[in-house]
Amino acid sequence: MTSVALCTINSSARSIARLCQVSRSAHGTADFHSFVARYSTLRKCAFLPGGKWSFIRAGTRQMSQSSPGRISLGRYGKGVFLAAGAAAVTGVLAAGVSHFQRAEMATKISKVEEEEGNIRERCKSFMSVPVTDIKVLEQRKDAMSTRMEMLIMETQAEFCRALEEVDGGSFRVDRWSRKEGGGGISCVMQDGKVFEKAGVNVSVVFGNLTEEAARQMRSRGKVLKGKDGKLPFCAMGVSSVIHPKNPHIPTVHFNYRYFEIEEADGTKQWWFGGGTDLTPVYIDLEDAAHFHKTLKEACDKHHPKYYPDFKKWCDNYFYVRHRGETRGIGGIFFDDLDSPNQEEVFHFVKSCAKTVVPCYLPIVNKHLNDSFTPEEKDWQQVRRGRYVEFNLVYDRGVKFGLATPGSRIESILMSLPLTARWEYMHEPTKGTKEAEMLEVLRNPKEWI
Amino acid sequence: MTSVALCTINSSARSIARLCQVSRSAHGTADFHSFVARYSTLRKCAFLPGGKWSFIRAGTRQMSQSSPGRISLGRYGKGVFLAAGAAAVTGVLAAGVSHFQRAEMATKISKVEEEEGNIRERCKSFMSVPVTDIKVLEQRKDAMSTRMEMLIMETQAEFCRALEEVDGGSFRVDRWSRKEGGGGISCVMQDGKVFEKAGVNVSVVFGNLTEEAARQMRSRGKVLKGKDGKLPFCAMGVSSVIHPKNPHIPTVHFNYRYFEIEEADGTKQWWFGGGTDLTPVYIDLEDAAHFHKTLKEACDKHHPKYYPDFKKWCDNYFYVRHRGETRGIGGIFFDDLDSPNQEEVFHFVKSCAKTVVPCYLPIVNKHLNDSFTPEEKDWQQVRRGRYVEFNLVYDRGVKFGLATPGSRIESILMSLPLTARWEYMHEPTKGTKEAEMLEVLRNPKEWI
Repeated sequence: MTSVALCTINSSARSIARLCQVSRSAHGTADFHSFVARYSTLRKCAFLPGGKWSFIRAGTRQMSQSSPGRISLGRYGKGVFLAAGAAAVTGVLAAGVSHFQRAEMATKISKVEEEEGNIRERCKSFMSVPVTDIKVLEQRKDAMSTRMEMLIMETQAEFCRALEEVDGGSFRVDRWSRKEGGGGISCVMQDGKVFEKAGVNVSVVFGNLTEEAARQMRSRGKVLKGKDGKLPFCAMGVSSVIHPKNPHIPTVHFNYRYFEIEEADGTKQWWFGGGTDLTPVYIDLEDAAHFHKTLKEACDKHHPKYYPDFKKWCDNYFYVRHRGETRGIGGIFFDDLDSPNQEEVFHFVKSCAKTVVPCYLPIVNKHLNDSFTPEEKDWQQVRRGRYVEFNLVYDRGVKFGLATPGSRIESILMSLPLTARWEYMHEPTKGTKEAEMLEVLRNPKEWI
Repeated sequence: MTSVALCTINSSARSIARLCQVSRSAHGTADFHSFVARYSTLRKCAFLPGGKWSFIRAGTRQMSQSSPGRISLGRYGKGVFLAAGAAAVTGVLAAGVSHFQRAEMATKISKVEEEEGNIRERCKSFMSVPVTDIKVLEQRKDAMSTRMEMLIMETQAEFCRALEEVDGGSFRVDRWSRKEGGGGISCVMQDGKVFEKAGVNVSVVFGNLTEEAARQMRSRGKVLKGKDGKLPFCAMGVSSVIHPKNPHIPTVHFNYRYFEIEEADGTKQWWFGGGTDLTPVYIDLEDAAHFHKTLKEACDKHHPKYYPDFKKWCDNYFYVRHRGETRGIGGIFFDDLDSPNQEEVFHFVKSCAKTVVPCYLPIVNKHLNDSFTPEEKDWQQVRRGRYVEFNLVYDRGVKFGLATPGSRIESILMSLPLTARWEYMHEPTKGTKEAEMLEVLRNPKEWI
């Protein structure tokens, strides 16, 4: 019963949820499409009395009904953002109105408690107690900061459980606090059977923005008016990078975050950011299509322009400029998202967070037993080097983290692979699979 | 006779140089002190007819005479910067006058050609023909850009030959050009017997400063007045990072560079920068003392405050802020050095460049046959990860390179090790050699 209470707006919008136990032995032999079907339906995991983990599954038939313009309204129908309506409005207002403005007209949200369930109950499924005291969360349950903290904790737990299941290993869970305010929960699995390094991190930090951080924000157009030079902020997010051992299993990264800054006059600036992207070592067209299709479906529920816009943003953002290549084959990325309104952006972020497991796990399972050569492992290591280059030179999250005093460096840099390699003048031979991969990174393409 | 003609101001200041052949078999068994003595005396290598390499050796007795305040004047005595004089002046003018100003009073330099020899002859010892056409260098032989280009080419050749000798392998030599102006010569040895990755790079580039590069320079106090927003510049330098395989042989880095910027009114701003620093994986007090002592001796010839000031600058510069540790055990570092005058700064830089081989090679030879465990190799790999962090997050040269269009990325990033490792929450056990190393990195100390 616990797990039924954990239904989110997205899963609850679809028919009646049913409980299922997921066994570890099942996925070694099944084919890709059965995995896609299986993980597409995993909505939520919960800790049951007796130490077992459960997943709530929504039927795949109902899942397909939630594609853009065809959402069915379930028992929480009133609470669902009307993506169908948004899509219809788009046609009418196509010219001269941004898609954020257009989407605003179609927003309608039900009460928080009705949507998201009891806080204390939901916390039972987390990897750790949340950063913020549960009593405080309960007291301000309608605040966006509370709802987002619950979402990121939930996302962390869902993803960690799914990875533990496939690897057989366990995450080390570190709960840490930051003397300047806030803290986090870092979950790391290192040198597992499947995963070389898997990190899933939640952080909820607050305090006054450093000058460097304020400078970085202003450099991308933010107008921030501090009082006596001080800008109180609150930032929270879930972020993850998974580096598998097998070079045929891609690296995945996702990050969903929320930011609040209080200005001199007491008003709050807020925005959301995030994205999910894939970094394969070898290109697999089926994987790429599955990954992007799953993201597109999540985006399309909110606005038909989200996927194309955020796909492009992702290709532009994860670009290793000095190499002239993207980090991987992309996905979606967005930042500074503050319209049409807080409620709608939150629901969009929630939809994205819910796609992480169905985006990635089918791909992991598909390649779990792929054999590989030492040369393929070497190529993976060279690509890992490029990953390090992007993360240390360009990644905004890493830059912000390194510039924020009291940041937990181990949590910020857990995104770095266990091992990496830099070969001078490495260039794959023409016509090889390695050259094919590089070609894609140099010329980003459409996958669906 | 060719090699005698290659005498530099520093070696020529000491007695009569004598020619010696260096055999590869000699250094496997001799002890540290004999290596120190041997490499301390290596001044210059030259390509002899018949394909053999020669080193000019100055006696060790004379070498010790060149310690601060006791420089003996050789046959080019008039041309030697009077460090003894500078030291004497220091006591008189200790308060309220910078050591740069003080040093100026003691500068006296002879003619360029007398000091540095015939350009075409000197070019014969280089790893490649210089970036600038030899005829052009000959035409403007008194220009600082010519003298510096010759010095960096010479330094590259000396160091590469010394490393080749100890490794048994050969450097790959890539001569490259930059479409925006200039080019370079990159020498890389990868996966050698002794060296995992050894890079020695010369670059001579010119063009107009990018906005990003100008911003970086202004951020450290430079006032740059461009014409129509343009700032023509010329930058050249030699830089090197050597990552050995054996964790008991430290990584070394050095870089000596010269910068010229032409302002709107036609005046030229110029400055020199550089330094040499050591990054051991395990601390060896004898190595540390030798390394720092060799640098101090070179600095003391020019000013008694250079070593203490530039040692401190080095500790501050090579600081991995987010880890709270220095990259290594330091050495010297300086930048924007533009006083007392161009001639004197050049001679100081030359002295520094000449210490590279005697600083490092005795240490390499000492540990050449040290055995090591897989755990020691792992610790080396973790330290390599930190090296990557510094280079990609903080290093000014890397930042400038990555921000300069048309830069040769492979030459900039050849400083990255072949392999590196990031372990989550890696912390050595108390009382181990690894913990001892970390302690030193967290609390930089005086080594001599």
